[in-house]
Amino acid sequence: MGTGRVEAFSDSVMAVIITILAFELRPPNGVDLAAVRAQLPGLLVYVLSFVFIGIYWNNHHHVMRAADRMSGATMCANLLLLFWLSLIPVLTLWLRDDYQHALPAATYGAVALVAGASFNVLVRTLIRANGQDSAIARAIGSDVKGKTSMALYATGIAAAFISPWIAYGLYVTVALMWFVPDSRFTRQSRA
Amino acid sequence: MGTGRVEAFSDSVMAVIITILAFELRPPNGVDLAAVRAQLPGLLVYVLSFVFIGIYWNNHHHVMRAADRMSGATMCANLLLLFWLSLIPVLTLWLRDDYQHALPAATYGAVALVAGASFNVLVRTLIRANGQDSAIARAIGSDVKGKTSMALYATGIAAAFISPWIAYGLYVTVALMWFVPDSRFTRQSRA
Amino acid sequence: MGTGRVEAFSDSVMAVIITILAFELRPPNGVDLAAVRAQLPGLLVYVLSFVFIGIYWNNHHHVMRAADRMSGATMCANLLLLFWLSLIPVLTLWLRDDYQHALPAATYGAVALVAGASFNVLVRTLIRANGQDSAIARAIGSDVKGKTSMALYATGIAAAFISPWIAYGLYVTVALMWFVPDSRFTRQSRA
Amino acid sequence: MGTGRVEAFSDSVMAVIITILAFELRPPNGVDLAAVRAQLPGLLVYVLSFVFIGIYWNNHHHVMRAADRMSGATMCANLLLLFWLSLIPVLTLWLRDDYQHALPAATYGAVALVAGASFNVLVRTLIRANGQDSAIARAIGSDVKGKTSMALYATGIAAAFISPWIAYGLYVTVALMWFVPDSRFTRQSRA
Repeated sequence: MGTGRVEAFSDSVMAVIITILAFELRPPNGVDLAAVRAQLPGLLVYVLSFVFIGIYWNNHHHVMRAADRMSGATMCANLLLLFWLSLIPVLTLWLRDDYQHALPAATYGAVALVAGASFNVLVRTLIRANGQDSAIARAIGSDVKGKTSMALYATGIAAAFISPWIAYGLYVTVALMWFVPDSRFTRQSRA
Repeated sequence: MGTGRVEAFSDSVMAVIITILAFELRPPNGVDLAAVRAQLPGLLVYVLSFVFIGIYWNNHHHVMRAADRMSGATMCANLLLLFWLSLIPVLTLWLRDDYQHALPAATYGAVALVAGASFNVLVRTLIRANGQDSAIARAIGSDVKGKTSMALYATGIAAAFISPWIAYGLYVTVALMWFVPDSRFTRQSRA
Repeated sequence: MGTGRVEAFSDSVMAVIITILAFELRPPNGVDLAAVRAQLPGLLVYVLSFVFIGIYWNNHHHVMRAADRMSGATMCANLLLLFWLSLIPVLTLWLRDDYQHALPAATYGAVALVAGASFNVLVRTLIRANGQDSAIARAIGSDVKGKTSMALYATGIAAAFISPWIAYGLYVTVALMWFVPDSRFTRQSRA
Repeated sequence: MGTGRVEAFSDSVMAVIITILAFELRPPNGVDLAAVRAQLPGLLVYVLSFVFIGIYWNNHHHVMRAADRMSGATMCANLLLLFWLSLIPVLTLWLRDDYQHALPAATYGAVALVAGASFNVLVRTLIRANGQDSAIARAIGSDVKGKTSMALYATGIAAAFISPWIAYGLYVTVALMWFVPDSRFTRQSRA
């Protein structure tokens, strides 16, 4: 089974999630800077979620490209990943309105954590389908970056109950960590 | 006529339906667990509809891949299938608000039933276009699983008027039945 | 210039229009048949618009497939066509609420008419780019069906001011006329 | 790295942005011409934004087609471009309601300006990845049109504080300027 149609479907879902995020932005209630400033928290949460989905799209792209074959389990893991990502818009709405509270901040991290776990399962099914010597297995390696992300999300969930701002700091850290292009795949494509 | 563009169009429609479902989720009206709990029925209906569309996408994928040719009738049947699937988001909204009543539960089953019938017609037009000896004809066989699903949906529609919960139980049973990977196509692709 | 990416873009836009139509459907305000019946006009308008977009998607598919080359003018005509089609959801909303009035019924016909004219321009730019002896030029021929549709829409616009129901009758007639598979392209693909 | 999947993803995002624009159109509050006329400003802003996105889609198409290779930086620049474009729907909503004020008019121009800058960065990463002798480097040349657009947007932002109508005039001028097919790529494809 090739990876083409699964890529196209996943792209569609992620593209629509990004634009639904944009769709939920509200225009300022007025025409002065104060009205614009009142929309800032919503805009920042939007940027975080946009970057979050953008990173998944990027990694999904790399992983699918590195794989030649996929299994039925890959399709299930992919659908599960898309399910968690599809919850991001509603969480973004919740964070926009209640960002100074513990539970919304922790829930955002929890969905990010299970999305990360689903991506991890997706990658493992691809490695199993392509073999331990395949390009994708060598490219992923011990996956330090993935494991660090999940540890940071888990810490963020707990830290949200001390202060949501620590949680947001950790989530932004994960986003920045992934924004740096992944040398593993670059190395791979050079070889 | 190849199946490429019809696949791409159907993928788009199904991807957008899934994210519209997500879009209709409402954030909790508060920041404690009670507020989250109040959203649970809506989330469960969302999961059911998400899995429902996901299964159609998966089966559509297998069936289209197994077919080499399609006819004008296939395009009509496909449009009809997408029409019924496009009603799922509004039914999900209805179920979210009125899940303890007979009529919404029965209507959900009725749309699932006619969607199943449309898929059945779609498959038959593909078998006619590709011949009784084609890969798709051998893969579908007597289609016990499809017929069982339709019988369960029909039972669910009637049972909804006794108790909606029996209907939901039957709908979940169909979903679980399809979640197990379809050995017919696996067998096929091995041969 | 090939037609691939324009097809993919147009497919996306039309797929999203169809699902936005579905998104604007409202669940019944109640759980009895009277509540369902109150949604019927909206559902019928939805079916009309769904079939309308579905027919354009189908014809677009045939026309693009029959063409080998396209020009910059084709891209402009295509964008214009998509613009008119993108007005269908808001007109569907208007018709849902005010279907018994002349102006909404006439406006629906007017947008259908200019969409038809844009499609006509699109086809002409394709014929110019591919030559008078090309497959697409032979397939389109004198385009009786297209001209009849535009005449019926024009009649419908005027008739809406006598009674909107005559207009709806004419719009449904056009839809039925196109639902019959277009023998011109079938003939073409046989040859 | 090929440009295929990035094209498909960008197409999806832009297609959804266009239809979200359409989705935000409101039907007239009545059935006479006065009610239609009250929607006119919203419709004109919609047309401006539709054409704006349409031009980006068109240029993106040309640029991606002219490039053979892309880098990780291209993917980042592309995501940044899509981010700015995804703000267009909410700005369109703001302009619809407050078009006679300076700040909304200036903000629209500011987002158009940074979107233009992102597109410029995108093109430069493509030139770096494909070489100074590549088809894309020769096609872009000194990019007078791109620089003029950014100057007009910058002027528009300042002019909005004198009168929003000057700003709108400048934005429409940019749109018209790009609507004329880009001879650079036509020349290229002839050679």
